[in-house]
Amino acid sequence: MTHRPPLAHDRSKPPSAGRRVVALTGGVGGARLLHGLAGVLPPRALTAVVNTGDDFTHWGLRICPDLDTVMYTLAGLSHEQRGWGLARETFHALDAMRRYGAEGWFQLGDRDLATHLFRTDALASGRSLTEATAQMCQGLQVRTRVLPMCDQPRATMIDTRAHGTLAFQDWLVRERSTPGIERVRFEGAPEPGPDVVDAIERADLVVICPSNPYVSIDPILALAGVREALSGRPVIAVSPIVRGRAVKGPLAQMIADLEGRPASARAALGHYGELLNAVVVEAGDEAGFEVPALGAATVMGGRADRERLARDVLDFAERHL
Amino acid sequence: MTHRPPLAHDRSKPPSAGRRVVALTGGVGGARLLHGLAGVLPPRALTAVVNTGDDFTHWGLRICPDLDTVMYTLAGLSHEQRGWGLARETFHALDAMRRYGAEGWFQLGDRDLATHLFRTDALASGRSLTEATAQMCQGLQVRTRVLPMCDQPRATMIDTRAHGTLAFQDWLVRERSTPGIERVRFEGAPEPGPDVVDAIERADLVVICPSNPYVSIDPILALAGVREALSGRPVIAVSPIVRGRAVKGPLAQMIADLEGRPASARAALGHYGELLNAVVVEAGDEAGFEVPALGAATVMGGRADRERLARDVLDFAERHL
Repeated sequence: MTHRPPLAHDRSKPPSAGRRVVALTGGVGGARLLHGLAGVLPPRALTAVVNTGDDFTHWGLRICPDLDTVMYTLAGLSHEQRGWGLARETFHALDAMRRYGAEGWFQLGDRDLATHLFRTDALASGRSLTEATAQMCQGLQVRTRVLPMCDQPRATMIDTRAHGTLAFQDWLVRERSTPGIERVRFEGAPEPGPDVVDAIERADLVVICPSNPYVSIDPILALAGVREALSGRPVIAVSPIVRGRAVKGPLAQMIADLEGRPASARAALGHYGELLNAVVVEAGDEAGFEVPALGAATVMGGRADRERLARDVLDFAERHL
Repeated sequence: MTHRPPLAHDRSKPPSAGRRVVALTGGVGGARLLHGLAGVLPPRALTAVVNTGDDFTHWGLRICPDLDTVMYTLAGLSHEQRGWGLARETFHALDAMRRYGAEGWFQLGDRDLATHLFRTDALASGRSLTEATAQMCQGLQVRTRVLPMCDQPRATMIDTRAHGTLAFQDWLVRERSTPGIERVRFEGAPEPGPDVVDAIERADLVVICPSNPYVSIDPILALAGVREALSGRPVIAVSPIVRGRAVKGPLAQMIADLEGRPASARAALGHYGELLNAVVVEAGDEAGFEVPALGAATVMGGRADRERLARDVLDFAERHL
């Protein structure tokens, strides 16, 4: 590709004030594309709106798995192989908690624990999740604006066929995502975070990251005013399904359970319906879309992969939207 | 000494059900004597009543410095030189908290953090401090019964000459116990812990450990019913002042500030007035007491020192009370 994408950051020029990108994201895959976007866009051009539907309380601490993955990934601190937590991590507190008889199924590292402690204490002191997140991002020298989708809790609940209704983390981690799914529901009806709708309305491009449509992106889309704000914006989505398989997590099985058809990029992105103006899928998965579809290398390892895909997405959007 | 102290545990015989010892204690010095007592008495013969007036909340966690020191010391896990926390410890969470801009003056280790997390979560779940402490002692295989002096918070406040009123930990740790003291006060008027008065009433001997009279033992004595229960029991106190100096902590300066005289074993133990039936002091400090006074080696290093002093205390009590 010789065409230089104008949305991407040209270091010889000042950032273009008119180019604003909002990325909607969940955990690992989305965080990686976000990391790529952060690498190729000027810092103030990028805002991440992050799912908080997986949030839960454990040992009395407020845990926000997707926010943490996003912060750690943008800070270059995440454990890449494991897909959760920090790269340099120890588990001394967890060992000690188990010794006291505390629940030990959710693995909290010692450095990671500071994130949950800081957040829990900040919330108890009356600061909002948005404020606490901004302060932690500053501490981690993350320059991308990271917005929790909302400040109040909104739990994603999984109605299973044989095990009743489970909170998402209980289903995913404790039950290892084995119970078959009948339905995904969102509890409560909180307002979107204070800057979420405004950021979307001002965006020149919205990127839906390669995250789980049902449990990572739908919780954002279901917030009051978000779909309305998106309907006027150019939206491009990157498929979380690659040649019929999820790169990570239980999405392939969820598509089979919820849609009654095999997992595919089309099935995953089809879930967004009219919202999309373009899609980026794994090369070979382009067929059958009603909007422009780019085939690319969507499975991201390190920084180079992430920035290359980010450039492909921005470039394709620039040409087609 | 050839006389074998009957209060001490003779492993060839079953524990004597009639011999019950209650120890009133604060932190390090008291915890060491308690460790010695636990080593020479059968487990069910010993109950520790522990000061909780130093307790405070930090990072949203309920921290009980004296309870922690007692539990860790009895479990053989405490850091002996440092005088607080655990021997094998790391500080990764603290480093991460500082990175977020959190207050870092109180050094919480990663394993230690589990204690405060477990306790805070237990209290939030409606369990009492007494119950949470019992569960943690079980996890640490501590067989001595460890009773917090009360379940509800009772803060020890320090009125200083130049810095106004400070919570005890703020004065001790943050201000390094430098502001001169005018008065020590206890906030609130909670009930003693559910088994505290009963344990004292059933005791064949009460040992006041070598802890700070003003901020470690007085908070226990000031609880409703405790002095009354003690008045009928044989009470022996071990001096926290050795040849005019405190083994650890700010006691010598506190005696000078509060009593207007130099620190001495007599000044320290004289604070307990009529309550005492016998005292144990450093050899050479015996003069001038109105009750039987044993000179002994009261500065304890390891286990052998602790058990020797415990035997000396029990033996002296057996002979004189």
